[in-house]
Amino acid sequence: MGLDNSAVKPHDRLSAHLADDMAQVNALIRERMASKHAPRIPEVTAHLVEAGGKRLRPMLTLAAARLCGYSGPYHIHLAATVEFIHTATLLHDDVVDESGQRRGRPTANLLWDNKSSVLVGDYLFARSFQLMTETGSLTVLGILSDASATMAEGEVLQLTVAQDLATTEDIYLQVVRGKTATLFSAACEVGGVIADAPSEQIKALHSYGDALGVSFQIVDDLLDYSGGAAIGKNIGDDFRERKLTLPLIKAIAKADDEERAFWVRTIQKGKQIDGDLEQALALLQKHGALEDTRDIALDWAEKAKAALAILPDDPVRDMLCDIADYVVARIN
Amino acid sequence: MGLDNSAVKPHDRLSAHLADDMAQVNALIRERMASKHAPRIPEVTAHLVEAGGKRLRPMLTLAAARLCGYSGPYHIHLAATVEFIHTATLLHDDVVDESGQRRGRPTANLLWDNKSSVLVGDYLFARSFQLMTETGSLTVLGILSDASATMAEGEVLQLTVAQDLATTEDIYLQVVRGKTATLFSAACEVGGVIADAPSEQIKALHSYGDALGVSFQIVDDLLDYSGGAAIGKNIGDDFRERKLTLPLIKAIAKADDEERAFWVRTIQKGKQIDGDLEQALALLQKHGALEDTRDIALDWAEKAKAALAILPDDPVRDMLCDIADYVVARIN
Repeated sequence: MGLDNSAVKPHDRLSAHLADDMAQVNALIRERMASKHAPRIPEVTAHLVEAGGKRLRPMLTLAAARLCGYSGPYHIHLAATVEFIHTATLLHDDVVDESGQRRGRPTANLLWDNKSSVLVGDYLFARSFQLMTETGSLTVLGILSDASATMAEGEVLQLTVAQDLATTEDIYLQVVRGKTATLFSAACEVGGVIADAPSEQIKALHSYGDALGVSFQIVDDLLDYSGGAAIGKNIGDDFRERKLTLPLIKAIAKADDEERAFWVRTIQKGKQIDGDLEQALALLQKHGALEDTRDIALDWAEKAKAALAILPDDPVRDMLCDIADYVVARIN
Repeated sequence: MGLDNSAVKPHDRLSAHLADDMAQVNALIRERMASKHAPRIPEVTAHLVEAGGKRLRPMLTLAAARLCGYSGPYHIHLAATVEFIHTATLLHDDVVDESGQRRGRPTANLLWDNKSSVLVGDYLFARSFQLMTETGSLTVLGILSDASATMAEGEVLQLTVAQDLATTEDIYLQVVRGKTATLFSAACEVGGVIADAPSEQIKALHSYGDALGVSFQIVDDLLDYSGGAAIGKNIGDDFRERKLTLPLIKAIAKADDEERAFWVRTIQKGKQIDGDLEQALALLQKHGALEDTRDIALDWAEKAKAALAILPDDPVRDMLCDIADYVVARIN
């Protein structure tokens, strides 16, 4: 089941396997992002929705429902719900982060304005709740409204611990759960719930999504220091934005007095000068912070795969397993 | 049933009449606005929730449930839901409007930052959906998720028609429904739904809330040109912010060429100089725009009262009727 680099990427294989469902999800997304009265809404949304994201989250919902033998129509609604929540979050994140680029294109807040990003995000949140209400499942509504609250809480937590050198790995993990893993786990879980799967399968789907999301985010944070142009990222964006991600937290934990003064100046006080990024990279290297971070990401990917064991033996399960491998393949 | 200026204000009487329920709503709001992980959340929320708003919207929900004979516990959840949606909207509005003051105090975006306002607003939206999910009523979820979508749509519409001199009274009404009346009507309606009231009573509650909300917003927009310090407002804020509210729309519809050039310069192009507000007020006066606006607000208040007719004869109904009178009393 290991990684086969010569093969088609696993999420592309899963997408092909679920092509009919995905086509329905895309049609539903296009239908529901419309607005009779405010044409600005579909303009802004289309900019993001059509931007060629991988649709990983809705695919997880479809895969979970398929794996649990669901034959009804509502996995389509739930997949669209999950994509709307994700898109709304991206719109608000770009305002919060004052970002100018996402997926290599200018962000909505730059093309239109912060106001449009805030309000269109609100519209998509509301639309997502309409969609999930249509499924008639209060369990699903409970899971996704809890997930939305946890996501917002994680984002606020990230804001309040920003630049705080005392941030621990536990707090980092809480932030990662909020900003990434919670929607992954909810996306998987609701696929099982709508299929009325046994509770241990639903738990397994939740654990898979959670571990996949955590490894996904840790890999993202690691690549910010080790990826470079090959993967379309600038090295050191997080450093310049003074984000306390896992590599920094690990290096700061091992810092001597002089190194600590460097982190206080560059991250806490934000007084960065030429050569600081190189110095930061040297400190990450010295303390093995990138290797340690990589090992933790690999552990989470293994946890994700292990969670799949009790689910039905099915090509979809194999592809979910391959996706967990693929997420960490970029750093291996 | 007319207005008695010597009496206690009608919303204060209603609040006293529903004091036990309101105490439970306030306790639930305080419980649910907490956050274990992100102390910034209750700080920001408390700033707004404790700011001494009239809690008019949750009171409408409690009143509707009481009027329809509800004896269960969930009107408390719904009233808290409505207040959370309202508070979330205020937080996002202040970011969108770049406001510095609300209810005579600095806004959250000024005290903290726009980021906190966006994310804490998202948190409250999510919390509101958790609360309504707990009621177990899919009808309620449908009404409130529809209302949330309409509200966001109205706000985006307001953004896109801003400074557009072709804005009609129909479009204005759509914006007013989105920003104000939709939450009023939903707040009333869900009180009837949770009480399992007959459908014509639920429709009447919806109509009352809608008409009350429309008159409430029109009065607000009118007072911006005629209120002054006595009601704690600066004359002309909307003019300076180039908002096309009903008084302006009416004056612009009757403008001659010279007046039109004035509106193009001051509203469309935003090039305002000393004396422009006085000139705008003179034009509103000349075309009777303030009187016409006042008449429309009074009409909506009458519609609100008329809708109450088929509801049970009860002191709560009388107080709802008095509230409709009170809303327009400020301009009469």
